[in-house]
Amino acid sequence: MIHINSNFLQLKPSYLFTEIVNRTRAYEQSHPESKVLRLGVGDVRGPLVPVVIEALHGAVDDLATVERFHGYGLEEGPQWLRQRVADFDYAPLGITLQADEVFISDGAGSDLGNLTDILDLGNRVAITDPVYPAYFDTNIMAGRTIDLLPCTPENDFCPALPEQTPDLIYLCSPNNPTGTAMTRSQLKMWVDFAREVHALIIFDGAYEAFIQSADVPHSIYEIDGAQECAIEVRSFSKTAGFTGVRCGYTVVPHALFGYSNTGERVELNPLWHRRVCTKYNGTSYIAERAGEAVLTDEGRRQNMERIAEYHHNADIIRSGLQQIGMQVYGGIDSPYIWTRTPGGMSSWQYFDHLLQTAQVVCTPGVGFGSQGEGFVRFSAFGLTSVAEQAIQRLQNSITL
Amino acid sequence: MIHINSNFLQLKPSYLFTEIVNRTRAYEQSHPESKVLRLGVGDVRGPLVPVVIEALHGAVDDLATVERFHGYGLEEGPQWLRQRVADFDYAPLGITLQADEVFISDGAGSDLGNLTDILDLGNRVAITDPVYPAYFDTNIMAGRTIDLLPCTPENDFCPALPEQTPDLIYLCSPNNPTGTAMTRSQLKMWVDFAREVHALIIFDGAYEAFIQSADVPHSIYEIDGAQECAIEVRSFSKTAGFTGVRCGYTVVPHALFGYSNTGERVELNPLWHRRVCTKYNGTSYIAERAGEAVLTDEGRRQNMERIAEYHHNADIIRSGLQQIGMQVYGGIDSPYIWTRTPGGMSSWQYFDHLLQTAQVVCTPGVGFGSQGEGFVRFSAFGLTSVAEQAIQRLQNSITL
Repeated sequence: MIHINSNFLQLKPSYLFTEIVNRTRAYEQSHPESKVLRLGVGDVRGPLVPVVIEALHGAVDDLATVERFHGYGLEEGPQWLRQRVADFDYAPLGITLQADEVFISDGAGSDLGNLTDILDLGNRVAITDPVYPAYFDTNIMAGRTIDLLPCTPENDFCPALPEQTPDLIYLCSPNNPTGTAMTRSQLKMWVDFAREVHALIIFDGAYEAFIQSADVPHSIYEIDGAQECAIEVRSFSKTAGFTGVRCGYTVVPHALFGYSNTGERVELNPLWHRRVCTKYNGTSYIAERAGEAVLTDEGRRQNMERIAEYHHNADIIRSGLQQIGMQVYGGIDSPYIWTRTPGGMSSWQYFDHLLQTAQVVCTPGVGFGSQGEGFVRFSAFGLTSVAEQAIQRLQNSITL
Repeated sequence: MIHINSNFLQLKPSYLFTEIVNRTRAYEQSHPESKVLRLGVGDVRGPLVPVVIEALHGAVDDLATVERFHGYGLEEGPQWLRQRVADFDYAPLGITLQADEVFISDGAGSDLGNLTDILDLGNRVAITDPVYPAYFDTNIMAGRTIDLLPCTPENDFCPALPEQTPDLIYLCSPNNPTGTAMTRSQLKMWVDFAREVHALIIFDGAYEAFIQSADVPHSIYEIDGAQECAIEVRSFSKTAGFTGVRCGYTVVPHALFGYSNTGERVELNPLWHRRVCTKYNGTSYIAERAGEAVLTDEGRRQNMERIAEYHHNADIIRSGLQQIGMQVYGGIDSPYIWTRTPGGMSSWQYFDHLLQTAQVVCTPGVGFGSQGEGFVRFSAFGLTSVAEQAIQRLQNSITL
């Protein structure tokens, strides 16, 4: 008799984005003359940059030939791309990686979900609150015990070391949803702690390309000893607009070890390699060639122009909100601005208020965890004209 | 202290294809004048058909525009493609599916590996032997108890019902590696059994496009009641040469239920939906558009021309082996021919013999399980000229 994984029944329904869509649609239907401006979405906008488009067409052309046709690739990704990641993304930071420590993926989402396949179900997990919901839900599905680490203005959104010693720790910097980033000393505190208690850090660096502050590391491996305690997950989604293309990578250093149930010390890299080869058939060749184009000087130049636009939008939103007296966080090393709601409103109350008074859509912070209550997230991924208009409306709605 | 999933230590090293490559390379290095012919590979050859190439370029062009840019898609796949699968692949077979019973994937490999995430670790699993290794390894990783079902010439490669009642059953038809396919009555026996004992069948239909025999069902849902007991996994990899493109789909009917640890009856479709939305960020938009092109009359016509070539190659290999007195199986509804080694040789002995006497590479059957010992697999995915030449050499090497 087939039995389900009953841990799934412990998951809370996920309705954040559905609810945003529903409330926005209801407003639009009852106010057909209004033009609603969306600052809620966490997705990039197009088009892809020219070098990437060229690489995508080139890969498709390969598949149209006998000679350059490409069938199954290596599940862990081709050597040329793994080496390119090590050389282009890490070597300039002073970080030495072997190509076989880099695993090409179809994006951060899959690997962040699947990585815990290689870890024991009994590991105790520390996760920040607020948080990207997948870290949490993945571990609920596996039945692990989770401790939440509050991230608030009071602790500068860098969680304090937990009372219960964790085995597995999720960190995301620059952070989604708070838009803040961990400094070198903050990150060092966590690396030192993880090494001390033999915990593993899963470090989500999906927003790395947005870092501007000098004291914010681009990779956790900039911290001494991090290769002995951290897996780093990255993606081309936000760096190069690949949310629809699907390509990223995950670094599992050879220096990482875990313990078996008999106390044996086991290297993690071959375990992840085996998992990838068993439950994955490799990233699309077309996406891999596009990823290669991102990792060139010209690819970086073209994509950083787009990132600069997002930074400009974030500046407009940040300063606009500050001008009307709101408390804002993040938005410097990130496309997200995290804002305390005025007058003690709940996240959803302020969402509704903003929709009705200014026809602007944000993301209620409570959707990312209980510590997000009383906050909303604004996104800088839209057009500059939309950001400008939205801020103008907010300022007007306050004045009126 | 981080602990690993110790079930990984129970996995046997996977060296089949590495070993084939190593032995072949060693032979070529010591016989630089020889031209080795490869009939071992299970990968398709190029190019992709014109309608698919056109769709791929079209999707890339979309990503080069502001208006038609495509960022995050739905994790479970877009409505237009899910509906197309139901209408184009299933409705003509008399099978009614709702679009939301179809989940678009990046290929069968990922879903076959990930599906058991929604199932209890205590389920008892029945798996055929020989078998595609991923079914087996996935369940070893999860620590489930596995019963192997021998598939031999004596039972016509259709396994007998197991003595131990299973909760989960893997079936693959047309089969990799044996190249045989289950008839309607054979499949009905399994569907009736699964319904009787409330087991779940995971049905791997990756080679469906190769079916020629009238009494071989194209989908398990052609059998009455199968929507109450089976998940069907399909791929464009072999149908349309997508092994490098990465797109497929999985059908999870609403009529499927499993039991929770408190005896509650729980529908599987929403569980799989939640799994997909948590640990996957959707299939590449470019691959999805290519999948759409496969599911058109012209797409089917163009791809079936290629399949006809593979069938032609299989005929050459089958009849050629029979002419030299070998016992062959499969190769009618499949690109694979399964052959008993002559003279009681082991799989690897015959592999070496064939390499040295005829410079032909096959796949040792023992690599797919102990019941594969004494067999080898030939693949029809190569060029017709290669198949012809290989058979000629085999016949000569016997005559000499």
